[in-house]
Amino acid sequence: MTFELLHTDSSCKARLGRIYTDHGTIETPIFMPVGTAGTVKAVHFRELHKDIQAEIILGNTYHLYLRPGLEILQNAGGLHKFGGWNKPILTDSGGYQVYSLAENRKITDEGVKFKSHIDGSYHFFTPENVMDIQRVIGADIIMAFDECPPYPCEYSYAKKSLMLTHKWLKRCCERVDNTTGLYGYSQALFPIVQGGVFKDLRQESAEFIASLKREGNAIGGLAVGEPAEKMYEITEFVCDILPADKPRYLMGVGTPANILESIALGVDMFDCVMPTRNARNGMLFTTQGIINIRNEKWKNDFSPIDEVLGGEVSGFYTKAYLRHLMISKEILASQIASIQNLRFYLWLVREARKHIAENNFLQWKNKIIPQIMQKL
Amino acid sequence: MTFELLHTDSSCKARLGRIYTDHGTIETPIFMPVGTAGTVKAVHFRELHKDIQAEIILGNTYHLYLRPGLEILQNAGGLHKFGGWNKPILTDSGGYQVYSLAENRKITDEGVKFKSHIDGSYHFFTPENVMDIQRVIGADIIMAFDECPPYPCEYSYAKKSLMLTHKWLKRCCERVDNTTGLYGYSQALFPIVQGGVFKDLRQESAEFIASLKREGNAIGGLAVGEPAEKMYEITEFVCDILPADKPRYLMGVGTPANILESIALGVDMFDCVMPTRNARNGMLFTTQGIINIRNEKWKNDFSPIDEVLGGEVSGFYTKAYLRHLMISKEILASQIASIQNLRFYLWLVREARKHIAENNFLQWKNKIIPQIMQKL
Repeated sequence: MTFELLHTDSSCKARLGRIYTDHGTIETPIFMPVGTAGTVKAVHFRELHKDIQAEIILGNTYHLYLRPGLEILQNAGGLHKFGGWNKPILTDSGGYQVYSLAENRKITDEGVKFKSHIDGSYHFFTPENVMDIQRVIGADIIMAFDECPPYPCEYSYAKKSLMLTHKWLKRCCERVDNTTGLYGYSQALFPIVQGGVFKDLRQESAEFIASLKREGNAIGGLAVGEPAEKMYEITEFVCDILPADKPRYLMGVGTPANILESIALGVDMFDCVMPTRNARNGMLFTTQGIINIRNEKWKNDFSPIDEVLGGEVSGFYTKAYLRHLMISKEILASQIASIQNLRFYLWLVREARKHIAENNFLQWKNKIIPQIMQKL
Repeated sequence: MTFELLHTDSSCKARLGRIYTDHGTIETPIFMPVGTAGTVKAVHFRELHKDIQAEIILGNTYHLYLRPGLEILQNAGGLHKFGGWNKPILTDSGGYQVYSLAENRKITDEGVKFKSHIDGSYHFFTPENVMDIQRVIGADIIMAFDECPPYPCEYSYAKKSLMLTHKWLKRCCERVDNTTGLYGYSQALFPIVQGGVFKDLRQESAEFIASLKREGNAIGGLAVGEPAEKMYEITEFVCDILPADKPRYLMGVGTPANILESIALGVDMFDCVMPTRNARNGMLFTTQGIINIRNEKWKNDFSPIDEVLGGEVSGFYTKAYLRHLMISKEILASQIASIQNLRFYLWLVREARKHIAENNFLQWKNKIIPQIMQKL
């Protein structure tokens, strides 16, 4: 995996870049739809290609490890072949899910013992075996196994946690450097900057991670409940330390506004369950603002969901029809809303790229955020 | 609506025909996917066109009347425009759902009072207002409002019920004949032969219905629990009485074998929730036989779901992947399985048509039923 920095906006730190992987090229800034268990929920792969125009999707190591499990994934020839997605994939390390979903977890220097949220069985994740698991899954970009401290969190805990994360990171790098991909293409390891909301810890972490000179770098432990201003402050602070010639991935972020603000600070990659999860609850992101499609006001609105986005879904189904499906708890409601929201997120980053190229990203961002974040 | 009888197989009573509606032509024998509440569950309309090649779909008057309701449907310009399906639609009369879903129903000569299964509100269906409701929904083919006796059922009850159904039928015809469609295209009323499993009642009903000379005729009250042989016996008996120059619709039938056997007896149209409902439970109909995709035996089977059907769904996703999705309760599982099953049902009737044209339907049917009904 290599990264080419094409251009930096003259009005802010927003960057235009290109990531080259063995499964194709990704234009940055990019949003990556989350495909938790090998599927972006309610969306066919052909819809990811055609309607959403996704360039890379995420898989969750924790979920895939538990189901379908490594044996099936390896027999399939990796996650790409298992589901039939031939573009790039990124997998997280499973760390976040171990802390948020699994029960009875016990963290030691060696790793984390946890109980499956599915069947109660016990498992042990270590930096080494999580790298091995991600080798089997076969994503193009794999993530370091870290500890994610909660928010809020005492300084002393954050510091201790960061030391563990750095120790584990060295073990992750060692394991990845001493092994190769199983399916004939390369996999890049991204380390993750942690340190909570403490600037000195973030500085220490960012400098350590920069020194490792991996193919790309991630910022973790944000968007976990801290105020948005704090998130932006830490993000900018860390971006300024991380090398400019490597992609920067802000994990788990966020709303359309969060994404545009973070692009302005120098972030290149994003993922978030928000577009798909909110879609299933009837919250639509559109070019005109945010819609709660369950609201009575849409019941006789026979205009397309999003005329600006257009296409065979956003430009075809009406708000009144989608409202009816959502109220009636029809599966098609989740399908339509998920495509709408993801199509919007991918449209948003494509627009962002256009305005970075034109050196007017900041101006455009400040104009469009009030429009797309207003409640209709 | 007109019907053209193109050909009758020389080896049995299977017929090849064509139904002309203001929303296009339907080749018969045909299977009609069920779109209960204005959506064929888990399936986009473009998938009904492209992957499934549906020629006509069903809507349920009971469901559509309760949700989204008549005001919204009329404001939309009818069901075709509401959802965006521009091919023919057939609506049932709501009778079946009033008896199977609604609570506290009370049948009088005038009509049926019932309690909504959604919000407990009270409603009253009469032959007249059900015709008016179907005018608002705007299907190309609308069904008479009847009483559906349960199975098993005493002769005396079946006879009394049939008399009521016939009285109601006259009121349905009168109402339809004294009104016109609301949206500029015509709607054909199909009466329904009832009479339970009693031949003399079925004869009386079929003769009465034939005498009405409507554009098409339906057989109701079968596939409600009686043995398959009894169903075939009644179906053949009724088909022989119904006019040959009108399409015959066997309501709510059935398995792939039921459909082929009934085609051989002279039936032209079918609908059933089985392909979609069973899909959501993991039961697949394929050209090679019936698959319970949740079964462990498929977990490492990386062959396409149905290579003979092929295409972007049946020929793309593997059995192992679909099993994983079904076990993980992913929405995409229902989406894929629903397309597979409906694609199979439409393939089946297209194959049937081909063999009727070749005058070897009976031979083909007897060969293929064991293949497609075997459990894999």
